Amino acid sequence: MIGTAEAMSQRTTGKSGPEGTRPGTADTSWLDEVAWDAAGLVPAIAQDADSGDILMVAWMNREALAETLATGRAVYWSRSRARLWRKGEESGHVQTVREVRLDCDADVVLLRVEQRGGIACHTGRRSCFFRRFADGRWEVVDPVLKDPESIYR
Amino acid sequence: MIGTAEAMSQRTTGKSGPEGTRPGTADTSWLDEVAWDAAGLVPAIAQDADSGDILMVAWMNREALAETLATGRAVYWSRSRARLWRKGEESGHVQTVREVRLDCDADVVLLRVEQRGGIACHTGRRSCFFRRFADGRWEVVDPVLKDPESIYR
Repeated sequence: MIGTAEAMSQRTTGKSGPEGTRPGTADTSWLDEVAWDAAGLVPAIAQDADSGDILMVAWMNREALAETLATGRAVYWSRSRARLWRKGEESGHVQTVREVRLDCDADVVLLRVEQRGGIACHTGRRSCFFRRFADGRWEVVDPVLKDPESIYR
Repeated sequence: MIGTAEAMSQRTTGKSGPEGTRPGTADTSWLDEVAWDAAGLVPAIAQDADSGDILMVAWMNREALAETLATGRAVYWSRSRARLWRKGEESGHVQTVREVRLDCDADVVLLRVEQRGGIACHTGRRSCFFRRFADGRWEVVDPVLKDPESIYR
């Protein structure tokens, strides 16, 4: 499923396509169907495809979504660094994408992924949602699995 | 867990509190910890607490989050109608909140909910994420469980 998007995404990514495809005629209407916000972004939720756990939420622009579908590897747009962020490029915690979904008003993307290393969060935890509301405060309830200093060398 | 938030949220919701609490001294620092965007909102993901399915994404302001925690029922901020949206107020598809989580940079809220009626989406489907990318297009893969015209009379 993921691979079939490759031909569609060439115009956006600027990559040369596989033999037999013609970038000039690529159909990118599926990208136009996404309700990009004023900054050209949509939020993307990464969900563990096996456990169903929500791992993280990040942003995508057209290029990030096109590359994600073309390569089967999660690519986001880093707002702080203002560049594409190929998840795992520093940490090795790559996300292999099994399925991509779009919601009813087309302004949120859902990725069902396999999380390499079992760690999605930059804090070294499995998920970014490690704080739970209890007794009037946000309580950390999930353990650090790996010291971030050893993840980002 | 949810009920304990009641005292904390009075100042925001303007409700009179349970006996023995004093609104004037309510601690709302947990609300200040949320990284509200420029419009005073954060995205909130509703996840089915049993199946793990992602049901929908909507927005919350301070009042919506405070009321959600005080009442144990999901309340969002409707951007289109510019008012609080007590999920299920028209459809009956109320969400009972079992757990509320916050992500690492405090700008996304996750609700684990019980979805009354088994329908979260205004299209009459279980989840808003009913389109899957396949063969270069977004394909509808989940069925309509109830005609929206019979939901919103």
